[in-house]
Order: sequence, then C-alpha cells, then structure tokens
Amino acid sequence: MNLPFKRDKKIAILGATGLVGLQLIKVLERRNFPVSELRLFASQDSIGKPLLFHKRLMNIQPVDFSNIDIAFFATDGTSSKKYYPAAKEAGCVVIDKSSAFRMDPLVPLVIPEINGHEIAKHRGIIASPNCTTSLLALPLFPLHTAFQIKRIVVATYQAASGGGKKQLQKLLQDAKESTLDLFPHDSALTPNGYVEEEVKMKEEAQKIMRATFALSATCVRVPVIRAHSLAINVEFHLPFTLDKVYEILHQSPGITVYEDRVNNRFATPLFASEKEEVFCGRLRCDASHANTLEMWVVGDQLLKGAALNAVQIAEYL
Amino acid sequence: MNLPFKRDKKIAILGATGLVGLQLIKVLERRNFPVSELRLFASQDSIGKPLLFHKRLMNIQPVDFSNIDIAFFATDGTSSKKYYPAAKEAGCVVIDKSSAFRMDPLVPLVIPEINGHEIAKHRGIIASPNCTTSLLALPLFPLHTAFQIKRIVVATYQAASGGGKKQLQKLLQDAKESTLDLFPHDSALTPNGYVEEEVKMKEEAQKIMRATFALSATCVRVPVIRAHSLAINVEFHLPFTLDKVYEILHQSPGITVYEDRVNNRFATPLFASEKEEVFCGRLRCDASHANTLEMWVVGDQLLKGAALNAVQIAEYL
Repeated sequence: MNLPFKRDKKIAILGATGLVGLQLIKVLERRNFPVSELRLFASQDSIGKPLLFHKRLMNIQPVDFSNIDIAFFATDGTSSKKYYPAAKEAGCVVIDKSSAFRMDPLVPLVIPEINGHEIAKHRGIIASPNCTTSLLALPLFPLHTAFQIKRIVVATYQAASGGGKKQLQKLLQDAKESTLDLFPHDSALTPNGYVEEEVKMKEEAQKIMRATFALSATCVRVPVIRAHSLAINVEFHLPFTLDKVYEILHQSPGITVYEDRVNNRFATPLFASEKEEVFCGRLRCDASHANTLEMWVVGDQLLKGAALNAVQIAEYL
Repeated sequence: MNLPFKRDKKIAILGATGLVGLQLIKVLERRNFPVSELRLFASQDSIGKPLLFHKRLMNIQPVDFSNIDIAFFATDGTSSKKYYPAAKEAGCVVIDKSSAFRMDPLVPLVIPEINGHEIAKHRGIIASPNCTTSLLALPLFPLHTAFQIKRIVVATYQAASGGGKKQLQKLLQDAKESTLDLFPHDSALTPNGYVEEEVKMKEEAQKIMRATFALSATCVRVPVIRAHSLAINVEFHLPFTLDKVYEILHQSPGITVYEDRVNNRFATPLFASEKEEVFCGRLRCDASHANTLEMWVVGDQLLKGAALNAVQIAEYL
C-alpha cells in the first residue's frame, strides 16, 4: 500500500505488553510503518521493561503523549477512557481497539477495506472494532453490497488468546492436564440472555456496514491458541448464485477463499494463525431457505481482528 | 426404569474394543442390565484380548451369534452390513449404532424418550441415531410438540472422541505440542457442499421426530476430549414464551436445564462428560426474528449419543 504521507510519525502504544500490544509492534515492523519515534506504555509495574522494535531495545516508559502523532490504545475500555483526555490534550490521534468509544456517533468505527473513507472525519479518535465483528464484517460487506443482508445467524469458535494472557495460560495448563474445555463467551450477560460480545457483533457490524439487518450470535471460546472461526448463516434480500459469491469474494481485499473440496480441507485456526488475510470457505447454498448462504470464516483475531486493522487505520491517516 | 422382562438376556457386542463398545460394557454394568451371558467381538487381531465386565475377565471371541438375544453393533456401516445377515440368521435382535440401516424405512430409528413405541415394530434390527442427531432431537422434540419447528440453523462443536481412537490420540499429541486446532467435520462431502454428518442431522432428526422442517447444519470438530456441543437457532410456527420453554424442558426426560446466569456459567463438554443427561442452557428469544429460540446443548456423545441410547433401546425390548 502506498502511504499517503512522507513524514515519519511519532507513535505511542498504550498497553504495549499485552497480546495486542505485542502484535502491534510486530505489525508496525513487518509493514515497515514509517516510525521516527516509538514510545511504549504499559502498567506501572512494567516501567523499565525492555521490548524489541526493529531489533532495538525499547523500554516501557511512563505515559506521556507530548509530541506524539498517533497513539494506539491496546487496552480495555476503562483504560481507554482514562487516558483519552491526556492524549487529546496532547493533540495526538488515538486509534482505540477497546470498546469504549466504538458506538459513539461522533467516533468513526473503521475497517479500512469497508469504510476507510470515514477516517478523514475523525475528531481525534478512531475506533477499531471487536475482533469477532471484524472477521464477520470483512467478508459479508461485499456480499451485502451485492445482495443486501436480511438476517445473520452466527456461531463463533473463539481462540483462548482472545481472552488475554491469563486465558492463554489456562489453556496451556488444560492441555497438559487433558482437561481441555470450551465455554460460552465470558463477557457480561445482558438482560435478554445475550452476552455483550454477541450484542457488539450486531451493533458494530451495522455501524461499520451502514446497514440494518437482523443478527443473532452465539459466542463460544474453544481451546485453540489463536485465530477465531465463525459459522455464518446469512439470508439476503436478493437472490444470488454461488458463482457470483465466489467472484465477489475473490475480488475483495483482505479475503482469501480457501477450499479444497476434494480433500475436504478448509482453513482452520492453526492455518490462519499469524496470517493477515481472513479466510472463507465451505460456501454452500442453504437448501432449506431461500436466498441463504452458509459460510465458514477464519482469521487471526490478533491481526485483522485487532493489531493489523489498527495499523491499517494509521496507514490511512 | 422397570424392565419389561424378567429373564436375563444373552448379549453380544460387535466392536467391543472401540470407544463406543467400551462404553456399552460400562453402561450395561452401571444400569445393571440383566445379562446371563456376554460375548465380545472385535477385529481378528483382538481375539483373546481380555476386557472386564462386572470385574470378571471376558475374552474377545470369534464372531458367533448363536443363542444370542440382543447383539449391539458398535461398528461402522460397512461392518454392520457385513455381519447383519449372520445375526439375523441366528435370530437375535440387532441394535445398530452405525449409519447403515438408519434411513431404511423398515428399520425403526429410535431415541427411546421420543419414539420408544416404534421399537415394537422392529423386524430384527433397530437403529440408534448419529450422536449429534441424538443431542439435537432430544431437547427439540418436546418443544416441537408444543410449538412446531419450522427451521433450524445449527453449528456443532464436536469432541475428538467422536472421530474414534485415532483422532483422540492426535488430540493428545496436539495438546502436547501446542498445535491444538479445530476443523470442519471430516465425513464425506456431498455434491452441494454439506458433509454427510450435516445431511444426517436433518434426515435422521426428521425420521425420529416424524416431522418436516428446514435444517441447515455446520459440523465442526473441536479439540476437547469428550462431549459434543450445539449452538441451535430454532424457529417455530407457533409463538412461545421462555417461561413455557423452561417448563417443557424441566418436564422432559433425559434433559437437564443447566444455567447459572449470575455467574455466566453453563454446561461445557468437560462438565457433561460421562454424564447420562443432555444439558440445555443459554435459552434466549432471538430478538431479531419472530418465534425463534437460541439454545446451547451439550451431551456426552459416547453415552446419550451412542452407548446409553443403545442400552435404553435394549431395556425397552
């Protein structure tokens, strides 16, 4: 991608020692993002800890946004809300991966392949969507443009690393003790029985895609280390053919159709791990219902679901 | 359960050394099935191998159905077809867990809680359904009776032991090497892109429930040792209330509603392992669609999904 600016940027990462923070550093390296200065922030007890950027040692510093151009917030909603005023005061642009500002009507919620044009409207902060929402919206948006989504039923298979370092450690322990398990998503329950993750998928996807459709989700964590999978049943207003669906997906940026029907092999979490693309497969007409498509989607939730999307937003800036 | 006969039965198990065969022996023990003789059959190279039944050593024998009352076939379809003529000739009743005869219109396909009355119509063989179908049909049948199912969208989370001993060994190896993965079900692909497991769920469920409804399934294996889970989105013809759904499920045999909403805890595969009941939870009205219910179902596919269901059929005989 050609960067729209020549000047190198002063970058900060808040939450640099977390799973997403560490990925952000890697993605900035791999995509050769033009960085003139990188400041890494984390919790108080991490100050002084070293991390590597382009093979140089960088220490975690006390939070200070002065002269920073772009601050990535790789934190939870509470921390994002706490530090945003200081970042705004310092005049830097925040790219926030937390849920704190996503549904704020004044904050663009962006997947660059879908609504990159909205980045220009920012007032100091741009939100990056929930990881599961990103993996849902990226392949569905071009299909929505063609056939108009009416209703989505989705079940997720989310990796342990989506729950942070603690959950990842628990998975490794479970693997050792042969107590591998899966469980419904651990975000807070809302009054109607859906967990917040399931509500976010609907609200955020609709905001990003500027569309209104029905969506019911069941979010489940599975004992894999990395990459989320989704079983999506999507009904369109307009009729479609599978050939046309393949054609659209083949032309859409960020998506790779991965199907080996002969050997019954499709993208799996292990296959998608550390890859930037989102993989689609198992495309089927739902024979039991008109204008309805079944598809299987897998993507690295730490990359397109988080760090990569944030860096892509920064590249647009 | 009161057994409808007093005389002890002569029992054979074909495929006694497989995962389901071993469970059959355990279930016969635990339910104190009245057995006067137990003959265990397996592949040629297992002959002479010892297995325990009520703490007595039993050796694998060459296949011989003479004087047997009930033969459990814990085998694949090919073996069931191969050995059924000999069993029929010997005059024993076969309870077959393979897919070989399930869709034969002359063979009852039975989940005793749903259609136990059809057992009496057998002509020498009764089929036990696919494990995933059992876990789907058991909780849905009483709801269908009340509200009439129109359409089901289901995504499965199937345990490695559903793929037999080899898949279980691969899982344990993967756990050691941190290469845990999930993958779409490995049964044969049909021309429209669904795998056979997904087609079976529809056909078998309709036969057992004597109902016609739309069903689209996505079957996925997840890296857990035992017990299958299902995320079910079910649309009814008639309106329902959640209170009524709870009331029906609480009264239905074989089902336990397990929900701890306050602590966001629901049945998981580890919890359901080695338990006879099928667990339901995460009951939600799908707010995005009329007359539609979301539910999460977990059950031990080796028990209610296979061995337990077969023994329950034998108890009815």
